Amino acid sequence: MNSVVDPVVSAGAPAPVGCGARRATRSVLVRWGGCEVRLGAGAPIVVQSMTNTDTADAEATARQVRELARAGSELVRITVNTPEAARQVPAIREKLDRAGVSVPLVGDFHYNGHRLLTEFPGCAQTLSKYRINPGNMGTGKKRGDNFARMIEVACRYDKPVRIGVNWGSLDQELLAHMMDDNGRLAQPLDAAAVMRRALVASAVSNARRAEALGLSPNGIVLSSKVSQVQDLVAVYRDLSAQCDYPLHLGLTEAGMGSKGIVASTAALAILLQEGIGDTIRVSLTPDPGGRRTREVVVAQEILQSLNLRAFAPMVAACPGCGRTSSTVFQKLAASIQGYLRDQMPVWKTRYPGVETMHVAVMGCVVNGPGESRHADIGISLPGTGEVPAAPVYVDGKHTVTLKGDTIAEEFQAIILRYVEHRYGSGTPPDGV
Amino acid sequence: MNSVVDPVVSAGAPAPVGCGARRATRSVLVRWGGCEVRLGAGAPIVVQSMTNTDTADAEATARQVRELARAGSELVRITVNTPEAARQVPAIREKLDRAGVSVPLVGDFHYNGHRLLTEFPGCAQTLSKYRINPGNMGTGKKRGDNFARMIEVACRYDKPVRIGVNWGSLDQELLAHMMDDNGRLAQPLDAAAVMRRALVASAVSNARRAEALGLSPNGIVLSSKVSQVQDLVAVYRDLSAQCDYPLHLGLTEAGMGSKGIVASTAALAILLQEGIGDTIRVSLTPDPGGRRTREVVVAQEILQSLNLRAFAPMVAACPGCGRTSSTVFQKLAASIQGYLRDQMPVWKTRYPGVETMHVAVMGCVVNGPGESRHADIGISLPGTGEVPAAPVYVDGKHTVTLKGDTIAEEFQAIILRYVEHRYGSGTPPDGV
Repeated sequence: MNSVVDPVVSAGAPAPVGCGARRATRSVLVRWGGCEVRLGAGAPIVVQSMTNTDTADAEATARQVRELARAGSELVRITVNTPEAARQVPAIREKLDRAGVSVPLVGDFHYNGHRLLTEFPGCAQTLSKYRINPGNMGTGKKRGDNFARMIEVACRYDKPVRIGVNWGSLDQELLAHMMDDNGRLAQPLDAAAVMRRALVASAVSNARRAEALGLSPNGIVLSSKVSQVQDLVAVYRDLSAQCDYPLHLGLTEAGMGSKGIVASTAALAILLQEGIGDTIRVSLTPDPGGRRTREVVVAQEILQSLNLRAFAPMVAACPGCGRTSSTVFQKLAASIQGYLRDQMPVWKTRYPGVETMHVAVMGCVVNGPGESRHADIGISLPGTGEVPAAPVYVDGKHTVTLKGDTIAEEFQAIILRYVEHRYGSGTPPDGV
Repeated sequence: MNSVVDPVVSAGAPAPVGCGARRATRSVLVRWGGCEVRLGAGAPIVVQSMTNTDTADAEATARQVRELARAGSELVRITVNTPEAARQVPAIREKLDRAGVSVPLVGDFHYNGHRLLTEFPGCAQTLSKYRINPGNMGTGKKRGDNFARMIEVACRYDKPVRIGVNWGSLDQELLAHMMDDNGRLAQPLDAAAVMRRALVASAVSNARRAEALGLSPNGIVLSSKVSQVQDLVAVYRDLSAQCDYPLHLGLTEAGMGSKGIVASTAALAILLQEGIGDTIRVSLTPDPGGRRTREVVVAQEILQSLNLRAFAPMVAACPGCGRTSSTVFQKLAASIQGYLRDQMPVWKTRYPGVETMHVAVMGCVVNGPGESRHADIGISLPGTGEVPAAPVYVDGKHTVTLKGDTIAEEFQAIILRYVEHRYGSGTPPDGV
């Protein structure tokens, strides 16, 4: 089901206009069985997510991992917070393997990771990567020892790690130390700037230490997350300038609803446009009862809107105005978008390249024909007072004009024929 | 209700970290009665939107303008597409004035704007700004004459205009001419690059012509919209380099659901971060039955997430994971976010500055206390297996720990006391 992420197939979009070169990084491989996901060194930017089921409940967790993988998550992280959770990790992996889901699992550790990874070798072995938070490992000598024990396990099982710093759990000893040093400067920085430096320093210095402990530099991914957009931009620019490890990028605690989507997109778009970021996670708080897979869809939409990767055909649709006061075109746009998304599980194997297709559903004559001509396939519905006819454009040419109550079905059929013709075996389309 | 946009009150957020300087532009005033909205020259970036009611239906249109203004739209555009629509514009304005809604109205014209603006002086007079699309005004000499007639009306009534180019309705004569010229070059550009140049050239050359016809350069706003993020970034960088008119920024035909929000945010965040854009509109296709005001909320969230303006307190909330497998914290985050939004119509006049407040609702001990300390006011709920107690942090200090079934109500009461104390008359908070 999930197989090797192939840079050629995955990065199907045309070379982006105006997008800066990707920052040069080392390459880190995250593996399970035959599935290999490459992070960094120009590989397609990897989409990841995290479960919110109790890891001790192997059945529920395996089910959610499967849903996330099916939605497009190329790595899935699970919290490993208790002995029972650690004990269940091999069972979760086995359920996934039996279901043909080979997505690599990443274990998220805080406070007791050194114990869980050493006491539960089955867990250490079946996870494909460990997330280590240097701010949540105790203090003083203990912190160093705990960190060393986790790195030893990573070396023993040949697993990559992410050293994942978060301003909500920043190493307080390091911060205090840096604040003291700053206070002694002739022109000290403000506290927020010292905090940002500490976030970067914590990630980079722990990575150096992991290398000194024997971990390959090609086994290290870094992150330093904060919840404010401009802070994240500043932190990741610094992090990127100070090391060549692949970077895991995400705005932490982005929040709910459109606010979470907007803040995550704003931060990630600015950084990705500068070539910064090798794997992304979008941390949305689900609405009560909402679907966890939404964070995967949004991550894909961010990458695709920036022309960095392509996952599913994109629908351009006008916002409507007083010229389109019926909801006909809103319904058509919604039904076409739903149709395309529903087809993708089959289409993506049957019609390679279909994920780069552009479809337009427009509400009136003002920009309708023009936008439709720019799309691979587009329809321009009649606005209020216009002749009740909907011209369809294929590859920029007007091919047919639809009328009556079956426009939605007919347009869907035209799309399917176009997809079969352009991305399929090459059978000429019938009537397109 | 809507009054002068005050740069001091509106741009309440602290100076952004890492955000480039705003591009220097001329200043354009859009006025109705005592309400003045300034575009450009460092004024706060203005949020605008557009109705989707039939303008000929004055009652429905006035109602929606009011909703959009109440949601925060500082300019509202209405299509003026027919004689009946033009005839109703003064009636719409009057209904708004009677209701105390002074938001300026912008008329959107295509094809017949020269006729409507001259034949309906009441419409020309009560609109505060005209949007002129140079691609939808006929061809050849007719196009020039129609454009001149609209500019004459703008001069007569002292109204600013937006010269609004869209790739769905780009002046085809200009494009053909530029394609021909390009074809004669030793190293011609690709067609997409010529198209982008034509979008910029159409806006800038028509602005120059409007000036030659007597319109003040301080009465001109430009836009050149496309529906692809990277194209928009390239076009606006050029547009910004070639003129000093204020720029109206928006991704056209962004589409539905999270895709529309993501694509709009990605494009606008990159450009706003470079200091480009003086007024924004987010062109979302509403879900059938969905609220039009969503585009206003998203526009505000884009500006606030970039620290460019502040509109409402922001809630940081964690995405939850296997440590927070109950939905208690999702429900609390949703209820607090809803509570804050519901209070804003009253709070924004009673508690100036409250729109910059940061609130955190966190699900477990990993980043909960830390993120809550960074917020103005935060709560860290217990994760699975933790002691069932929720510490509250105010201005970075732990003040109280909540327990039991009434955490939501108690936290809400703490927020209210904090708001009254910090942003109100200064009465000391009771129990905070």
